[in-house]
Amino acid sequence: MPAAPIYNRVALIGLGLIASSMAHAMRAHGLAGEIVGYAKTPETRATALDLFCDRVTDTAADAVRGADLVVLAVPVGAMGAIAAEIGPHLMAGATVTDVGSVKAAVVAAVAPHMPAGVHLIPGHPLAGTEYSGPRAGFASLFENRWWLLTPDVSSDAAAVARLSSLLAGMGAKIDTMDAQRHDLVLAVVSHTPHLIAYTMVGVADHLEQVSNSEVIQYSASGFRDFTRIAASDPTMWRDVFLTNKDAVLDILGRFTEELFALQRAIRMGDGPMLHDYFTHTRAIRRSIIEAGQDTAAPDFGRAPIPAPDQGTT
Amino acid sequence: MPAAPIYNRVALIGLGLIASSMAHAMRAHGLAGEIVGYAKTPETRATALDLFCDRVTDTAADAVRGADLVVLAVPVGAMGAIAAEIGPHLMAGATVTDVGSVKAAVVAAVAPHMPAGVHLIPGHPLAGTEYSGPRAGFASLFENRWWLLTPDVSSDAAAVARLSSLLAGMGAKIDTMDAQRHDLVLAVVSHTPHLIAYTMVGVADHLEQVSNSEVIQYSASGFRDFTRIAASDPTMWRDVFLTNKDAVLDILGRFTEELFALQRAIRMGDGPMLHDYFTHTRAIRRSIIEAGQDTAAPDFGRAPIPAPDQGTT
Repeated sequence: MPAAPIYNRVALIGLGLIASSMAHAMRAHGLAGEIVGYAKTPETRATALDLFCDRVTDTAADAVRGADLVVLAVPVGAMGAIAAEIGPHLMAGATVTDVGSVKAAVVAAVAPHMPAGVHLIPGHPLAGTEYSGPRAGFASLFENRWWLLTPDVSSDAAAVARLSSLLAGMGAKIDTMDAQRHDLVLAVVSHTPHLIAYTMVGVADHLEQVSNSEVIQYSASGFRDFTRIAASDPTMWRDVFLTNKDAVLDILGRFTEELFALQRAIRMGDGPMLHDYFTHTRAIRRSIIEAGQDTAAPDFGRAPIPAPDQGTT
Repeated sequence: MPAAPIYNRVALIGLGLIASSMAHAMRAHGLAGEIVGYAKTPETRATALDLFCDRVTDTAADAVRGADLVVLAVPVGAMGAIAAEIGPHLMAGATVTDVGSVKAAVVAAVAPHMPAGVHLIPGHPLAGTEYSGPRAGFASLFENRWWLLTPDVSSDAAAVARLSSLLAGMGAKIDTMDAQRHDLVLAVVSHTPHLIAYTMVGVADHLEQVSNSEVIQYSASGFRDFTRIAASDPTMWRDVFLTNKDAVLDILGRFTEELFALQRAIRMGDGPMLHDYFTHTRAIRRSIIEAGQDTAAPDFGRAPIPAPDQGTT
C-alpha cells in the first residue's frame, strides 16, 4: 500500500534518465502528490506527460510555482541559468535539490539565486545506465544505490530529513558529505574511469591497422566493458569534466604517473613488479564484492548473450 | 546424446580456469575418450582428478604419451620450458595447441621443440572470468565465444579441421588469423584495457586522501567495472605484457597521446571537443551490441545485487 505523499508537488526540471526514473519511483511508492515536469524540448515534455508526469509546463518558472520540492535534473553546465530563472518563483519553505555528478560547481552556480527561506540541499544519485532520455527511466533505478547529499552547516535539518525520506522511499541508501570531498571521491570512482574509457574507445577507433570489425568482434576480452562506460550521455559528461576540472586533472596526473611506471616495467621486462602490482589489485576487487557493490558471479553475473544469427561456423 | 569422441586421449598441461572448463565441456559433450591432466602442484592435480580428469600424472612428459591432442594451458612464460620437456614424448601425428593470450611469442617458444609429424596449431579462446584455478572451470565457458587459431601456411588442413570440430563441439565460434595480427588486435581489445584497469585501481588504492572504504562504497559509478578486469590472474597477465611487449607499448603510446588531448581539452575548457569525442564513442558501443558481443540491457544486464545487511540508512 502506498505511503502518504512526502511532498505535495514535485517539480522536475529536466526530464532525462534520472528525472524519469524518479517520477516512476515516486508514483510506484506514492511519494508525491503531483509531479510537474519541464524540459527544453516540446517532444521531451510530450513524452514525459505520456509516461510519468501529471502535468508539464512550457517554462521552468511555471513548473516550480507551488512546488514544495524542486529537482534540478539538467546537465551541470545548465544549472546556473535554470536557477536564475526559477529563483523568483520558488515557494517559501520549498526544498531545491539537484542530481548533478559534481557538487561544488553546482552550489556555486545555484546558491546565489536561492531566495531566503528556500532550502538548497545538493544531491547526487550514484545510479544510472548507459541510456539517456525520458524513455530510459524505470522505477527501480535507485534501489540499493547510494544517494549522496552535500548539505552545508546552515542546512535545515528537518528539510534534509524530509528529502532523505523521499530518497529512502525510492529505495536509495543515503550518505552525506562535504561537497569538495564528494567531488574528489567521484573523480576517483567515476569521472576519471569514464574519461579513460572514452580514451581507450577512441584509440581503438582511430587505429587504422585494426579494422573496426575486429575490434568489435573480439570486444568481449575487456574492451566491451570500456565501451559500456563510454556510451553514457555526452552532454552530461562534458559538463562533469569542465566543472570538476581540478579534481579530475589531479587524479589524471596520478593515473599517468602510475601508468608510466607500469609501462616502464613492461619495457624493462620487470616481471616481479608487474606480478606484485596485479596481485595487489585483486584484493580491492574482493573488498568491493564484500561491500555488496557487485556480484561475485563470474563475468559480472551477465546473462548469457543469445547466439547471433550467423551460427557458429 | 554425446557424439563420438573427436580425440581418443587429450592431455591438459596446466589445470586452471581454461583447462578445467575444457575438461568439463569435453565431458559434457563426449568429445574426448580420455582426459589426462598435469599441473605443477600436487594439490591442483588432486583437485583435477576429483573434479574433471580421468587420470593425472606427476610429469608433463607422462601426460602427453599416447595423446592425440595436447593442450598447453600454462602461463605464456612457461610454454617454452614445457614444450622442451614434452617434445621427445609426443606421439607422431598428434596435435599440440595452446590457450595463451599471446601468439607470436608462444610460437617462437614452442615450435622449435616440436618433432616432425606433430601439428602445432596455436589457439586462444576469448573467454574467461575474473576467477582462476582448477575449481573455477565450468562447461559453458566457451559457448558463443570466439576461439582464435593462428595456424601458419604449413599447417595440416585436416589437423586444423579436427581441432576446430572439438572447439565447435564445446560451443565456440572459430576464426583464424596471422599470429602477429592476433597480437595487435588483442593488444587493443584486451591487453591495454587490462593494463589501464590495473592502473586505475592502483591509483585509487594509493590515494591517501580518499579512504579505501569510500572508493569501495561508491564503486558502482564506473570504478567497479575496472576492478573486475583488474582481478584477473596476475601470473597470466604479467606474461601477457612481457611477451606482447611491442604491440602493448604501441597501443599504450597511442592511448597516452589521446588521453593528453582530452586532458588538455579539460584544462582549456574546450567543451565542443569533449562533446564531439563522447558522442562518437557511443556509436562504437552500438556496434558491439549489434554484433552480439554484449547485451543491450542497462548496466550490462547485471542481476540486482541484494541489499546488504546494514539496512538502508
